[in-house]
Amino acid sequence: MNEKTSDESFETLDPKDWEKSRALMHQMVDDAFDYVSKVRDRKIWQDMPPETLESFTTSVPRQPNNAKAVYEDFVQHVLPYNMGNLHPRFWAWYMGNGTISGIMGDFWASVMNPNLGGGNHAAHKVEEQVINWMKEIIGFPETASGLLVSGGSMANFTGLAIARNAKCGYDIRKEGLRPEDSGKMRVYASSEIHSCNQKALELLGLGADSLQKIPVNADYTINLEALVTQIKKDWEIGLRPFCVIGTPGTVNTGAIDDLNRLADICEAEDLWFHLDGAIGAIAMLSPEVKSQLAGIERAHSVALDLHKWLHMPFESGCVLVKDQKMHKDTFSLIPEYLAKNTRGIASGDNWFSEYGLQLSRRFRALKVWMSLKEHGTERFGRMITRNVEQAHYLGTLIDSHENLELIAPIGLDIVCFRYNPGGLTLEALNVLNKEIKLQLEERAIALPGYTTLENSYCIRVAIANHRSTDEDFDELVKSVLELGKELH
Amino acid sequence: MNEKTSDESFETLDPKDWEKSRALMHQMVDDAFDYVSKVRDRKIWQDMPPETLESFTTSVPRQPNNAKAVYEDFVQHVLPYNMGNLHPRFWAWYMGNGTISGIMGDFWASVMNPNLGGGNHAAHKVEEQVINWMKEIIGFPETASGLLVSGGSMANFTGLAIARNAKCGYDIRKEGLRPEDSGKMRVYASSEIHSCNQKALELLGLGADSLQKIPVNADYTINLEALVTQIKKDWEIGLRPFCVIGTPGTVNTGAIDDLNRLADICEAEDLWFHLDGAIGAIAMLSPEVKSQLAGIERAHSVALDLHKWLHMPFESGCVLVKDQKMHKDTFSLIPEYLAKNTRGIASGDNWFSEYGLQLSRRFRALKVWMSLKEHGTERFGRMITRNVEQAHYLGTLIDSHENLELIAPIGLDIVCFRYNPGGLTLEALNVLNKEIKLQLEERAIALPGYTTLENSYCIRVAIANHRSTDEDFDELVKSVLELGKELH
Repeated sequence: MNEKTSDESFETLDPKDWEKSRALMHQMVDDAFDYVSKVRDRKIWQDMPPETLESFTTSVPRQPNNAKAVYEDFVQHVLPYNMGNLHPRFWAWYMGNGTISGIMGDFWASVMNPNLGGGNHAAHKVEEQVINWMKEIIGFPETASGLLVSGGSMANFTGLAIARNAKCGYDIRKEGLRPEDSGKMRVYASSEIHSCNQKALELLGLGADSLQKIPVNADYTINLEALVTQIKKDWEIGLRPFCVIGTPGTVNTGAIDDLNRLADICEAEDLWFHLDGAIGAIAMLSPEVKSQLAGIERAHSVALDLHKWLHMPFESGCVLVKDQKMHKDTFSLIPEYLAKNTRGIASGDNWFSEYGLQLSRRFRALKVWMSLKEHGTERFGRMITRNVEQAHYLGTLIDSHENLELIAPIGLDIVCFRYNPGGLTLEALNVLNKEIKLQLEERAIALPGYTTLENSYCIRVAIANHRSTDEDFDELVKSVLELGKELH
Repeated sequence: MNEKTSDESFETLDPKDWEKSRALMHQMVDDAFDYVSKVRDRKIWQDMPPETLESFTTSVPRQPNNAKAVYEDFVQHVLPYNMGNLHPRFWAWYMGNGTISGIMGDFWASVMNPNLGGGNHAAHKVEEQVINWMKEIIGFPETASGLLVSGGSMANFTGLAIARNAKCGYDIRKEGLRPEDSGKMRVYASSEIHSCNQKALELLGLGADSLQKIPVNADYTINLEALVTQIKKDWEIGLRPFCVIGTPGTVNTGAIDDLNRLADICEAEDLWFHLDGAIGAIAMLSPEVKSQLAGIERAHSVALDLHKWLHMPFESGCVLVKDQKMHKDTFSLIPEYLAKNTRGIASGDNWFSEYGLQLSRRFRALKVWMSLKEHGTERFGRMITRNVEQAHYLGTLIDSHENLELIAPIGLDIVCFRYNPGGLTLEALNVLNKEIKLQLEERAIALPGYTTLENSYCIRVAIANHRSTDEDFDELVKSVLELGKELH
């Protein structure tokens, strides 16, 4: 050991007493294992009391505090008031649960703390391998490129940026959007498309008006005839169609667009074919679902979210791009202080910072690498299949009770339903179901989500949950019926 | 415990044997503490052997593997070939070292695994508090807004997106960039500006041409006269100046632009004043540096990078915005499936997804919260001050050896120098110094960075390192002199 660093008078951010710090981390591990393994026994959600809310209003700490005291503060005020998405009866929005292998991988990402912007080190190879695995899963060729990103929003943003640059036909990186394209470029997607795609187009300078929302069929998939009609009309009036976004698994109802037909249309019209696969693309791992995703491999770019149905801890998005050159051409920018070397740490051909917005990047590949090695794709596939089956099991329960009704066809793993005792106006039904949903939370029974479909408020059950059992859905239905009766 | 989950036949992604998994995690903690506490004794960097490179070429695992075997794979092939930025003699690019308190916070972020997109839960309050602390540090008012993001690239992108939208004068989110603005909007910054800002402008549809790079003075700060002249000229020829980016701490040499003068110019010309403070803004914590940053509080938006001089594990960027409404107006987008509730988990006024590109977001605030509570701002300030002092200590060493020379004035904590025995052409000097730098790596002596300033290759020492001692710089200088002599 260097004399200076073992000298207590040399202040660093390292623990003064390594053994005490190590003991604290061991305690954290025990607490964490208790926390995760006993998740079913804890309240799924609870509101924060006033003293906890008050605790977050203190000003920035100037003096040091004992690490153990800081941890106790966390245990008292943060840990008990968690979101709840680890719980077997959490089905809100669309999230995963997390896993122990993901926690372990993330732990080592923080310990090793490399920067995945680029360079010649093992973490870079791990990310390359994870991207290759994703290409295998989706059916993309070896020559395709990819990047792990923060999530679906960034994955879609990245795909749409490449689409914009690849299709505009001039050096948009240098010139910016040309006047003749301002207000003219058009992207097509179903009216059920996730809002993050609109946000991406706004940021890219194309505006929300560039997104042509195409009506959906009764099953909430994009209406292909309406799509073709709109594209042709737009060409005719001098607009510039350049991209279609397909959705294999919409956020509201899990509807899967006909990907092969969309690919045909894109080929015929020379459009970029992007897929927002944040919810559904990874269902390629399920032999039972895979055939519904036929055509996914024909996309130019696909967005995935591994913190959803692969249950990685946040953040773990991924974008895959068929044409590696177009991908790199959109993002590569190498000033003198990032120049590569021929040997050593700064060597290597492809740096990940050349494939996305970020320069410094966390080692988010490690949790995916460790998890896929531990569980294998077939187990993930079985978890996905089971969630789909559970959606239909829940559908059967709903069908069997006359006071419950489905509001949309069940797509993938998403069920939208409501309590309807009959004789109520739409408005009264909406108020009643909203209250049922809130009381499910407040009584810590279950945490489904909600949405509104054609003015009908629905309880929306999005089952990306490896811990849910059939009994959990029995419990949900029983509670909704009881609450409905009580509140009506 | 629910009967079904304790039933071994119910497959989940949870460990089949919790105690075995817990023991593995404890082993990881011991290995990690050894890894971090003994970092000085390990090679700073080493190349990967062929069998390790080979190990990353296997296809996606289909069947499960024992978690311990996966870990052993990691220990053999990943851990030894790390980037090296934990080491006391790592001064490449511009990174932090990480800390144990950061690791602990990140661990719990993965365990709790909440989604910081929004909602009523404690993690949200923790992030609010961390943002409030950053506002306090920078001198922004309580009414300002902010967001934790992946890093400096995203923080600058966010600030520039708000600048674009706030200054264009119409509903650019809806319409996109208007034809009359295409190719016309202009942003001003010194020629030393970090490339991520150009990348941001390209993605925002404005193009690299929108970035007017203003010459620098001999100390690498922006030339204010040239800036004013350029702005006036651009107005005159019908361009649309809308933003100035100041840099408190440039990436090449650590130069600090005159922020008060830039603020004056922005006020006079009605321009948005953005700061790329990824390197230098957090030096507000150093009483010795703070005065050089005077005017920082006058910016409309500031980008910070807490994984740099605060040594948080990746990723920890932050953007602060003076006008909360303009910030929210750029990013808020709430479709029906993200509608807020009046009570319960989905309540709360301000969701973080309304302030940035991401919807799902990791609990990255926790590591910052725990670290600031444990160490306090004054200790972080002392670490920053010491690095600045070390830069000047290194400068003194360089001055004292006739075969070494500084290539630029020392700015903040960045030293650019070279070995120059005299009598060599510029080209020969560049080749020699490049080889010295490579051999420093390959002999595992030290990991400085490098850059090129006015055609001169420099060894660039960026000292954001809480573990570096003065003796580490003695060692660097001694080794450069020896290598120079040997290789010349």
